Amino acid sequence: MKRRKFLKGAAAGGVAAAAATVAAPAISQGVKQLKMVTTWPKNFPALGTGAERLAQRITTMSGGKLQVKVYAAGELVPAFQSFDAVSQGKAEMSHSVSYYWQGKSPAFNFFAAVPYGFTADEHYGWMLWGDGLKLYTELCDQFGVVPFMRASTGVQMGGWYRKEMTSLEDFKGLKFRMPGLGGEVLRKLGATVVNLPGGEIFPALQAGTIDGTEWVGPFNDLAFGFYKVAKFYYWPGFHEPNTTGEVLVNKKVWAGLSKEHQEIIRVAVQAESTMEFAEFTYKNGNALDVLLNKHGVQLRQFSPEMLKGFYDASMEVIAEVGNRDPFTKKVYENFMAARAKAIGWSKLGEQGFMNARLANFKA
Amino acid sequence: MKRRKFLKGAAAGGVAAAAATVAAPAISQGVKQLKMVTTWPKNFPALGTGAERLAQRITTMSGGKLQVKVYAAGELVPAFQSFDAVSQGKAEMSHSVSYYWQGKSPAFNFFAAVPYGFTADEHYGWMLWGDGLKLYTELCDQFGVVPFMRASTGVQMGGWYRKEMTSLEDFKGLKFRMPGLGGEVLRKLGATVVNLPGGEIFPALQAGTIDGTEWVGPFNDLAFGFYKVAKFYYWPGFHEPNTTGEVLVNKKVWAGLSKEHQEIIRVAVQAESTMEFAEFTYKNGNALDVLLNKHGVQLRQFSPEMLKGFYDASMEVIAEVGNRDPFTKKVYENFMAARAKAIGWSKLGEQGFMNARLANFKA
Repeated sequence: MKRRKFLKGAAAGGVAAAAATVAAPAISQGVKQLKMVTTWPKNFPALGTGAERLAQRITTMSGGKLQVKVYAAGELVPAFQSFDAVSQGKAEMSHSVSYYWQGKSPAFNFFAAVPYGFTADEHYGWMLWGDGLKLYTELCDQFGVVPFMRASTGVQMGGWYRKEMTSLEDFKGLKFRMPGLGGEVLRKLGATVVNLPGGEIFPALQAGTIDGTEWVGPFNDLAFGFYKVAKFYYWPGFHEPNTTGEVLVNKKVWAGLSKEHQEIIRVAVQAESTMEFAEFTYKNGNALDVLLNKHGVQLRQFSPEMLKGFYDASMEVIAEVGNRDPFTKKVYENFMAARAKAIGWSKLGEQGFMNARLANFKA
Repeated sequence: MKRRKFLKGAAAGGVAAAAATVAAPAISQGVKQLKMVTTWPKNFPALGTGAERLAQRITTMSGGKLQVKVYAAGELVPAFQSFDAVSQGKAEMSHSVSYYWQGKSPAFNFFAAVPYGFTADEHYGWMLWGDGLKLYTELCDQFGVVPFMRASTGVQMGGWYRKEMTSLEDFKGLKFRMPGLGGEVLRKLGATVVNLPGGEIFPALQAGTIDGTEWVGPFNDLAFGFYKVAKFYYWPGFHEPNTTGEVLVNKKVWAGLSKEHQEIIRVAVQAESTMEFAEFTYKNGNALDVLLNKHGVQLRQFSPEMLKGFYDASMEVIAEVGNRDPFTKKVYENFMAARAKAIGWSKLGEQGFMNARLANFKA
């Protein structure tokens, strides 16, 4: 209708006026508003800021035809309702982590983080070149949602403890905040595991309601100030060795996008796999330096005996979870086969190199 | 001019004909042809195929307005003239690795691979969140070229040897193919270092012209069949612990692109950092399995004494190279400071986790 009007105008009013008018209706007709809900507070470091960057990039690349607006947790729906919001079409997209949806299927754990599972690089390999993303897509299809692998945090630290941990015995009765499968592992070892959202952890630690907590790594942990109330910072983390996020798109919305716009979203999310993980890698290095040299944090390494205890319990937990239903079993077995090959290569590659480098490095 | 014609037509011929005509000139006017030269053979695994994927994605995301055409090495210009081709505007873009341009400035080495330098993840961190890409952009500016970080191969293997290497003495007089700064390190240790393009290595190894060679890693090495003529496959590689590629764009061409098209190229290249590296990670794991279990390759680990010798010689080589001119010195010092922090974090993160995992893993 607007074009009709324009054409009449053009005929009557001449070239210059027409040229100014022609663009407007074509653009406004093609514009799609996409609401992207997240599971993060507004501008939360790396995760919330990454969601904003992703939205901006999609909008820019589409010449403004895809207008993505980010909603922090709670703004449109509560954090843990974001999957359902996309599934039901209340939001077109979400920016989250799949292990939050393990209540819908235990298989969701394998696309996010598995105790003693993949590193970030290995996970990216399995997802993009192995069967990972195919299986994830198959799982999400029944919910009317199309999944994309977003970015990893890298290896998460073993957490903050108010007292030194010298043996597995010390976990008995320990009140510790750790979500997901890692939490199941500690529960198996006798800990009282609690899950608290980010904002509630510091007060709980300060009040002594919990004896310790894990969060992410030096960069995010420094921001929360855990070093003020728990002195011992343990490594290596076994429970979330990559923790890779997702972007979900409503299936009908996806099907209604042009090939061009689908590719813009697919590629923009993939670029986040680089950007966001690189931010964690770089800023963890800087933040660690600050924690150790400015705040006097005491670094402690879990003993080999403790790491073996975590390992054995982890294998039990993931076997239990992995065998709960036929689809999850298929994912679990695919994951474990890929993991064995990935470990074989990492040993010679990244790990072999880093060990040779560290043996000779002088700070 | 075409719009004038259309408007006349619209006035005369009515709405339907006009609507059909309006799109055609707008699109054909906006189409840009971008020639992307590469330093790889046509469809070379991961590198050549990655160039094709990148071109396709840019074309798709721009709705066909950026038509990127890939030229294999030698098709438009020889491989090692691709930088100059972009600089002089014979090609609009290139897909390559910056250490090939070390003849223009030694600083180019630091944006590609440094013996005992960064891993891929650490390199991505320095480039995208530290000063890496800023310095690289500053360096390229004088050549009229805008650089983007592309993708890493991950840690490269230590290479194929016809005889076992038991000490640094064994490198004296050894005829070995290794390019770049790694080659300088072996030269310092007494080897006769040669550089051969990919296609010439196998015949040279077969004829005994060289005693050994490095190439990339299991995935690429398997394709070349080195295992047929050199039995011993050494790890870890110290010489190219990440080897990260680039995409270059002619500066005037870049400045002439819309914000939308600039973002499409920037984001598409960044997505390659994920895609291509993930391909190496995943396929190296599978290929290693084939090499060891099907082709009877003998894996050998360099001794700690050899790794220390490589390390000391590497630090000497990069200090020599890093101090050759003021700009390179600035890059070298920035790189080394970021490296120290990166090593601090990797020790606790990826490396700490992988060591704990491997200590307990049973194949």
